[in-house]
Amino acid sequence: MTAANATETLRVELGERSYDIVVGADLIAHAATWIAPVLARPRTIVITDENVAPHYLAPLRASLQAANIDVDTITLPAGEQTKSFVHFQTLCEDILARRVERSTTLIALGGGVIGDLVGYTAASVLRGMPFIQVPTTLLSQVDSSVGGKTGINTRHGKNLVGAFYQPKLVLADTTALNTLDHRQLMAGYAEVVKYGLIDDLNFFEWLELHAQALIDGDMDKRRHAVLTSCAAKARVVAEDEREGGRRALLNLGHTFGHALEAETGYGDKLLHGEAVAIGMAMAFDLSRRLDICPGQDSGRVSAHFDAICLPNDLAVLDTIGWTADKLLDHMSRDKKVEGGKLTFILARGIGQAFITRDVAEAEVRSLLEDWLANRSG
Amino acid sequence: MTAANATETLRVELGERSYDIVVGADLIAHAATWIAPVLARPRTIVITDENVAPHYLAPLRASLQAANIDVDTITLPAGEQTKSFVHFQTLCEDILARRVERSTTLIALGGGVIGDLVGYTAASVLRGMPFIQVPTTLLSQVDSSVGGKTGINTRHGKNLVGAFYQPKLVLADTTALNTLDHRQLMAGYAEVVKYGLIDDLNFFEWLELHAQALIDGDMDKRRHAVLTSCAAKARVVAEDEREGGRRALLNLGHTFGHALEAETGYGDKLLHGEAVAIGMAMAFDLSRRLDICPGQDSGRVSAHFDAICLPNDLAVLDTIGWTADKLLDHMSRDKKVEGGKLTFILARGIGQAFITRDVAEAEVRSLLEDWLANRSG
Repeated sequence: MTAANATETLRVELGERSYDIVVGADLIAHAATWIAPVLARPRTIVITDENVAPHYLAPLRASLQAANIDVDTITLPAGEQTKSFVHFQTLCEDILARRVERSTTLIALGGGVIGDLVGYTAASVLRGMPFIQVPTTLLSQVDSSVGGKTGINTRHGKNLVGAFYQPKLVLADTTALNTLDHRQLMAGYAEVVKYGLIDDLNFFEWLELHAQALIDGDMDKRRHAVLTSCAAKARVVAEDEREGGRRALLNLGHTFGHALEAETGYGDKLLHGEAVAIGMAMAFDLSRRLDICPGQDSGRVSAHFDAICLPNDLAVLDTIGWTADKLLDHMSRDKKVEGGKLTFILARGIGQAFITRDVAEAEVRSLLEDWLANRSG
Repeated sequence: MTAANATETLRVELGERSYDIVVGADLIAHAATWIAPVLARPRTIVITDENVAPHYLAPLRASLQAANIDVDTITLPAGEQTKSFVHFQTLCEDILARRVERSTTLIALGGGVIGDLVGYTAASVLRGMPFIQVPTTLLSQVDSSVGGKTGINTRHGKNLVGAFYQPKLVLADTTALNTLDHRQLMAGYAEVVKYGLIDDLNFFEWLELHAQALIDGDMDKRRHAVLTSCAAKARVVAEDEREGGRRALLNLGHTFGHALEAETGYGDKLLHGEAVAIGMAMAFDLSRRLDICPGQDSGRVSAHFDAICLPNDLAVLDTIGWTADKLLDHMSRDKKVEGGKLTFILARGIGQAFITRDVAEAEVRSLLEDWLANRSG
């Protein structure tokens, strides 16, 4: 096996819900190797979207059929608007129309939208069907395919309806990232660098050196980055599967990020990963303003983002009409709000993130006002 | 405490998801006594329907408010059609519009429709909110409030989308049955007698003696019947929370019953409990035809149903145009189908039910044809 074809497997330990994440190049074309052993019966439904289907549906199906696995397929429209109640209902009914049994396995082939929707659908149809994730974006490989969070968007915010539900297997094919557009790849990278910022200074330093290579297509660097990210997330999730405590660290940049996404309408104007990138820069800036984090660390974060052209201020957005109040209002609707108190992930430095509910609203408001006036620096 | 006010509590043991079922008269008016101790925060949303609200919403709210518990309310249309994707979506959005937190508790006040819909909604909103069941029908007190099955109906069948999700508490107020119409009460009674038929001949014999009294309003008899039924179900569920094995016994009468309901369109023509009653009579008849069960036992079941005027043949239905094929088709869509094989619960006698996948389709077809021709006896 050459270096480019090397695969590595990470076991996510969750008792009887444990599963493997397999990371490497060219996995989809040989998917049956890993999928066949985890099927209760040789019957699958592959659910994908119109962007992903032309690239990866045929090789995935060919691999499964060559292993005598029955493959049905459902192709959905691409885009965030597919993560809706309407598509959830249609997908449930379409699956039921195929007379599935609890032993039929759903395979989610696509990015986070497909993974989240199919995961919640798998949790719900027949009150639970097995499912497998084949994430095809960097974001979904490092984020939404680990941790069991599934769900759909609502009028009141993103991911507010869903289930904690674990896949039987995740196949993260780093070759699939070749067909991803550059902006989506960069948005995914924001979640990769997040794991360095949370608790792994070494990984952040490795990324400072190698981010450009993995972005440019180096498969070994991609595998290392995906595996390190998944391992970091899996470690936190294993400790806190249902999000009572430490898992909140994974929300670094997300409290701000969700507010930005809500205000832009969850569209193409601002991708989730871009929102998280800006949100992480805001979290480090807030930490600096509160004298928790040295200015050189928050500066180093921004410098790295600048070096690889990852957005890290509001200048990329049309913020006319935005106010700190509107953003605060979005933040107060976050799932993690408890007793009316916002939860923030702040940092004492790179790799030293922590959870707090003790941030004065005035400080947050002041930061938002400054950033809206492009006085972030 | 007088006999009429006696309450009994049953603990359902499911590890960290364990909860109490409190059974007795006049519980709703004193609901806070049991509800206050299980709330994470003193904030609740009571979800009920237009039939139940006029009777029980005011006393429930008064009891909670007197205990300084915040009470919001949502009242839905009554009837099976409320257990739909549309109402699920609307309810999720309505709950989110109230800016709930994961510590806000949903209270389902009503029958099985409200319990199943609110339970699934509680499982889904914010990926899981605590909820309490206050079942107001006999059916929901003995069936849908125990076991954690929640869900909604689909185009392809009833309860095919949902979650296994446990309440924090169940309050079964036997006084609430006074406002239930007689047909609904009898439909609920079908699920009570089911527990005798499955594995408790003594309970069946007690019911032969006391069924009429509990139907007529004897609170002690009601409490005993509800508690015995819940205990029987809880015993089975504790052994098999996610429905792999023994739990299937609870589906006695349901494979046939679901087919009858599907064919009548899940409307008022045939209530769920009526379908189960007929289904149980069919299951005993099938057992007799297969020489598994003595004719005197299947006759005794029908005689008891006749004595209390519970439907036990297809004569109550307009079956013009029905065929055995149509009913078999409905049966094949059941969630419990595995490898294309139908699961039946048959009985070697009263109190001796068992699970089997070895029933020849020809036997089932012949039984259905005979029953459709009203040759059940």
